[in-house]
Amino acid sequence: MANITKKVSWSSRADESGATGEGTPLLNGSEQPRYSRQLSGGGSIFQIGRLSTVDLEEELTSDEDSLRGRPKEIPHNEKLLSLKYESLDYDNSENQLFLEEERRMSYIGFRCLEISRWVVCGLIGFLTGLIACFIDIVVETLAGVKYLVVKENIEKFTEVGGLSISLILWAVLNSAFVMVGAVIVAFFEPIAAGSGIPQIKCYLNGVKIPRVVRLKTLVVKVGGVICSVVGGLAVGKEGPMIHSGAVVAAGVSQGRSTSLKKDFKIFEYFRRDTEKRDFVSAGAAAGVSAAFGAPVGGVLFSLEEGASFWNQMLTWRIFFASMISTFTLNFFLSIYHNNTGDLSNPGLINFGRFESDSVAYNLYEIPLFIAMGAIGGLLGALFNVLNYWLTIFRIRYVHRPCLQVMEAMLVAAVTATVSFAMIYFSNDCQPLGPEHAEEYPLQLFCADGEYNSMATAFFNTPERSVRSLFHNQPGTYNPLTLGMFTLTYFFLACWTYGLTVSAGVFIPSLLIGAAWGRLFGILLASITSSGSIWADPGKYALIGAAAQLGGIVRMTLSLTVIMVEATGNVTYGLPIMLVLMTAKIVGDYFVEGLYDIHIKLQSVPFLHWEAPATSHWLTAREVMSSPVTCFNRIEKVGTIVDVLSNTSTNHNGFPVVVHVAPGDEPAKLCGLILRSQLIVLLKHKVFVELARSRLTQRKLQLKDFRDAYPRFPPIQSIHVSQDERECMMDLTEFMNPTPYTVPQETSLPRVFKLFRALGLRHLVVVDDQNRVVGLVTRKDLARYHLGKHGLEELHLAQT
Amino acid sequence: MANITKKVSWSSRADESGATGEGTPLLNGSEQPRYSRQLSGGGSIFQIGRLSTVDLEEELTSDEDSLRGRPKEIPHNEKLLSLKYESLDYDNSENQLFLEEERRMSYIGFRCLEISRWVVCGLIGFLTGLIACFIDIVVETLAGVKYLVVKENIEKFTEVGGLSISLILWAVLNSAFVMVGAVIVAFFEPIAAGSGIPQIKCYLNGVKIPRVVRLKTLVVKVGGVICSVVGGLAVGKEGPMIHSGAVVAAGVSQGRSTSLKKDFKIFEYFRRDTEKRDFVSAGAAAGVSAAFGAPVGGVLFSLEEGASFWNQMLTWRIFFASMISTFTLNFFLSIYHNNTGDLSNPGLINFGRFESDSVAYNLYEIPLFIAMGAIGGLLGALFNVLNYWLTIFRIRYVHRPCLQVMEAMLVAAVTATVSFAMIYFSNDCQPLGPEHAEEYPLQLFCADGEYNSMATAFFNTPERSVRSLFHNQPGTYNPLTLGMFTLTYFFLACWTYGLTVSAGVFIPSLLIGAAWGRLFGILLASITSSGSIWADPGKYALIGAAAQLGGIVRMTLSLTVIMVEATGNVTYGLPIMLVLMTAKIVGDYFVEGLYDIHIKLQSVPFLHWEAPATSHWLTAREVMSSPVTCFNRIEKVGTIVDVLSNTSTNHNGFPVVVHVAPGDEPAKLCGLILRSQLIVLLKHKVFVELARSRLTQRKLQLKDFRDAYPRFPPIQSIHVSQDERECMMDLTEFMNPTPYTVPQETSLPRVFKLFRALGLRHLVVVDDQNRVVGLVTRKDLARYHLGKHGLEELHLAQT
Repeated sequence: MANITKKVSWSSRADESGATGEGTPLLNGSEQPRYSRQLSGGGSIFQIGRLSTVDLEEELTSDEDSLRGRPKEIPHNEKLLSLKYESLDYDNSENQLFLEEERRMSYIGFRCLEISRWVVCGLIGFLTGLIACFIDIVVETLAGVKYLVVKENIEKFTEVGGLSISLILWAVLNSAFVMVGAVIVAFFEPIAAGSGIPQIKCYLNGVKIPRVVRLKTLVVKVGGVICSVVGGLAVGKEGPMIHSGAVVAAGVSQGRSTSLKKDFKIFEYFRRDTEKRDFVSAGAAAGVSAAFGAPVGGVLFSLEEGASFWNQMLTWRIFFASMISTFTLNFFLSIYHNNTGDLSNPGLINFGRFESDSVAYNLYEIPLFIAMGAIGGLLGALFNVLNYWLTIFRIRYVHRPCLQVMEAMLVAAVTATVSFAMIYFSNDCQPLGPEHAEEYPLQLFCADGEYNSMATAFFNTPERSVRSLFHNQPGTYNPLTLGMFTLTYFFLACWTYGLTVSAGVFIPSLLIGAAWGRLFGILLASITSSGSIWADPGKYALIGAAAQLGGIVRMTLSLTVIMVEATGNVTYGLPIMLVLMTAKIVGDYFVEGLYDIHIKLQSVPFLHWEAPATSHWLTAREVMSSPVTCFNRIEKVGTIVDVLSNTSTNHNGFPVVVHVAPGDEPAKLCGLILRSQLIVLLKHKVFVELARSRLTQRKLQLKDFRDAYPRFPPIQSIHVSQDERECMMDLTEFMNPTPYTVPQETSLPRVFKLFRALGLRHLVVVDDQNRVVGLVTRKDLARYHLGKHGLEELHLAQT
Repeated sequence: MANITKKVSWSSRADESGATGEGTPLLNGSEQPRYSRQLSGGGSIFQIGRLSTVDLEEELTSDEDSLRGRPKEIPHNEKLLSLKYESLDYDNSENQLFLEEERRMSYIGFRCLEISRWVVCGLIGFLTGLIACFIDIVVETLAGVKYLVVKENIEKFTEVGGLSISLILWAVLNSAFVMVGAVIVAFFEPIAAGSGIPQIKCYLNGVKIPRVVRLKTLVVKVGGVICSVVGGLAVGKEGPMIHSGAVVAAGVSQGRSTSLKKDFKIFEYFRRDTEKRDFVSAGAAAGVSAAFGAPVGGVLFSLEEGASFWNQMLTWRIFFASMISTFTLNFFLSIYHNNTGDLSNPGLINFGRFESDSVAYNLYEIPLFIAMGAIGGLLGALFNVLNYWLTIFRIRYVHRPCLQVMEAMLVAAVTATVSFAMIYFSNDCQPLGPEHAEEYPLQLFCADGEYNSMATAFFNTPERSVRSLFHNQPGTYNPLTLGMFTLTYFFLACWTYGLTVSAGVFIPSLLIGAAWGRLFGILLASITSSGSIWADPGKYALIGAAAQLGGIVRMTLSLTVIMVEATGNVTYGLPIMLVLMTAKIVGDYFVEGLYDIHIKLQSVPFLHWEAPATSHWLTAREVMSSPVTCFNRIEKVGTIVDVLSNTSTNHNGFPVVVHVAPGDEPAKLCGLILRSQLIVLLKHKVFVELARSRLTQRKLQLKDFRDAYPRFPPIQSIHVSQDERECMMDLTEFMNPTPYTVPQETSLPRVFKLFRALGLRHLVVVDDQNRVVGLVTRKDLARYHLGKHGLEELHLAQT
């Protein structure tokens, strides 16, 4: 028990941001040096795998010039952990106010709450479905107009020559759409870029990503995705649906919009992180459900990515939201397609129905499927590595909004040009069948009654291309067409992901996979006798699509269910599972999944499911931040203001202590209070003037805290006069009197388990007399990860 | 802070069994009075809803005569909580030995462990699949023989008269099979009775049900289910598969069989409750997967019923086990059915494929489906209430094994007689179609080329009956046949569930539902114009089956996926969900689900997902057991032996304390030690003889604990001499030095959340100086539940 009582001063520091070194000068705002980072302060006996500071400095100096002046770049080193991300408070602060409210509430009250949770989930599902429907209809309409215009133009110029004019028309149309999409994203809401899945993963993991669930983000996201899909980029509209669902959930559940300054005075009980996060997981599930027509897949997605604590009632609500979402989308689309009430074709993407008899599989095919899974894993890893390099490049050199817009337009133009060239030089003509009527058949140089088969793949929305790869008759594509298509689309998609447009990677992945899968099937059929079970290449297209998608995003359980639900056929469950598992194992050998790469590049303190395997020899004592800034139960207002105003240590949680004897350190823990709570107290001037004996202490209610949630004002905006600084503040009623604690000897995996299972933000470390010696936060735990050389420690960065 | 320091003596009591009154004399063994129960001892301020003791006494005296001499009856009052059930230790005891082992292990070591976990899950899936295959083949063969014999006999006697002989033959055959099944269950392993799902639910919830995962249970279960299905009872073989999978998992993961006295010296790392429970959840999932061909459904079942802490890796392993299980079953069945390698028809029960085009549904049908859900909920509640009364009756009057066997035989004979009567008096003749060839078509009094349609329902294994109800052409059954069938089968199934045979309730429920669903469809078709969308009654049979099953068992998410996977068609996902939710809501209004009723009747301390809603005004202080039996860090052997031998307080966990000053009470917490650990220490005589200065302290290893797991010897079997009683025992190395603690003011929901999320067995309650004041165990939390009159407290019973 020696060596444990470190010197802890009650007013020094307690930080959600963990192990910030004491001596390092920290600056704030945009002036701060780009890569100021601190190695973890004292206490750690732990140096394995740490990059030496010298290496880092060298690496950085060379970049510094190019980086200067960039307002919001992300550190492009995956061995960093950013301090700018905070945790959600998934653990309720059970202070007196809260307990009083809960105790006042009758059983009927709780029933009403439960019912309103269901109502909110229903609303979330409904609105998410509506948004999906809106996106779908607008995209179909605009893309239809675009393809018709270009088709007419091409047909006009095929005869008379001068197809270059058609090419220019096509490229300009694409670029124009993409420009609009990129401008709104780059200039108005950069967080709306990409698929949004990494951000939602982080949010569900418990990280508060700034601005990610705001109304403005939703609007930009929806507009952006429409523009980028219509602009012909190699993107899908499915990923953004997940983000959209999450935003809808965060908005609806709060019963107000801070952006629109409109408070409906409903659902006030849900205005805290615990409830909000639960609803956001329902929203994400509803998004998946709308995107793929996969309600069960949506639930599993939410659980696989988010929930650490499985709660049956919550799961059912999530399920309900997913169900309503599919249903709504389905119903409105059926009206739009003039067969009102036919609900059998859910989802934005519809893989078309695989009839079981035609595409049964045999045991002998299982090894083939597994091989395809391995190919998918390899190609996925390649995709991810290329995209990683590209992202690093973008972070360094393409960080100004106008540059970003220009890159997006360039990609759009190149996509059009490449597609055009592929179609132009292809001479794969296919007869125009009556039953498989193509939407926009391009005759080009084919004979009458025939169409260009390359154009089915390129001159189409990606969803339709996937479907035709799955379902067109054997012989519709020739192998060369498919090979060329796979190759070009692979690089186009890889280039496209990470552009400053809002767009998803699901559909491009499926498309690439379906193309090489079909190619695989065709080759297989050609080397075996015809008419055998190998005859249908559509089956292999499906497996290839699963393999490629699995190799890129590395989901297993939820993706299996999503694929099964989207194909509407359970028979393929088993091979899809095998394929996805193989793809994951093979891919993980080389590089992480695409979303994880992007999360790492943003230095998000993401907590995995378990502590690193070899971390049993670390204890809370080594991991915790220490010394800790504590407050007394009755604290001077001036002290509180000073601590909160200290920009070098942007602490968010403070243990509240009592001193048994004057001057004894460390002091006994008696509660935990959050920065946000203190801010509200200061704002409402809940002070005890010593002279007037508590007369001015206003009675605060939970409502005051809820009204301020989630955008608590900064401390700088609160004016505290000199007189007020001398007052005292009684924290007893507002602090959480029973924070979770662990002894200093607790092993890291044990701390991790407690932290993760309960979704904590702060975990107080106490000695054997219940005195505060440290504080463990998300960043203290996320710092440790398993690298190639064993346990490594990430560095903390201010950016 | 007043009123909190209750008198705590360090050697008085700390009990997993919670609030046993101090003054009540407790007896042990079979001599003890049947209904000795204790109201919760001091501390509780809480009397709402408590049955007055007088009422209980009255109720009990009248029963006592009939109950005398019964060895193992269960208390037939759902307001009791039995003390005989213990918790699993899902929380690792991170003592020095454990930490040393973990720290010694390299990264490669952890990888190997992870791989062996996958291997174990693969084995679990494989063996579960094999067992399912074995059951299926044996049942098919024996049932085939039986039906052929009876059919021949009936055909012989139809012409010449004397069908009563056929009836007797049928009844005797059935009774003989059932007798064998009932005898092995009643006399050899009573825990193998029923479907086993309630027991597995409890196990996954964290309750150690004695003998539930033993090899003997598995053998009896498999034998029993074969006999009862072949015996023609209204039962299914699916529920028992879940139990079988769980037993397989518990066996395989331990790398040894205690029953067979065979230790393979592998998987020794997994010999603790944490790992074992994880594997059991994989086994249960594999069981579901084999039973219904629903791997995803299996995973969801395990999660819905069991896991409170969702871990991605664990989920993937569960998924893997499920997948292998379906695959194995599928593969071997395909060999058996002579189409080796065709893997498209998984599962023991196969609902047959619903082709989408023929059975599409329309928005207008949704309200109809919901109405059917409500009917299912009502009928399910009726079923459950009837079965509840029946179970109470059985507990009181049918508790001797021979009586149980006789009841089972009676039910078998009655089932045969009723079936025969129904067939005999039915004159619903249908033409013998070539494509829908019935397995055992009974011509009886029908014209040549026709068969008796009632016989398709009764004279068949239930699985086949379900399938023909789903898929036979419209017009195959007439409404009267279906109505009569529903009515009789409902009561037969209700009577059958709870018999001392091993059998499931899934298939009978589906069959009842399919029958009235089809009836519903036929009626609907007859009141609307023919040829419309209503024409296919198979669709309504499916919905009815879902509604009835949902009304009885009240699962939603997992059942939806199971149904979808078993029908092989995703289109019905949405209506099935709606139906199951409606059935659950309607059913829950009246009575709980069937499994929950049986769990309650066994007085199992089952923890629900959340604390009762209105329990915020209870704190750890009111909930905890106090005073607590603690040990010193270095304790006298005699004291330990005495405490462990005290049969009146069968404690399982003891806080280890240090006294800062002599005589100060309560003492400071420094660890937690389990009864099982102390037993091992005593068995290996890990004593410090004071005179010889630690010479005899043998170095114990984790292996010694693992070898003793899970059947630790009772304290009575360990001889401790008088000299040894004077020795000391140093617990430092073996206790868990960092048990989870909560302060006394913590609210019940908060305690509950911590306890549930981490799967704890003991939670130490400490004061503000880290001194032990109480202990919270499963029973302390399970005691509180929401009754009709608000929060109620259950009584604790020794049985």
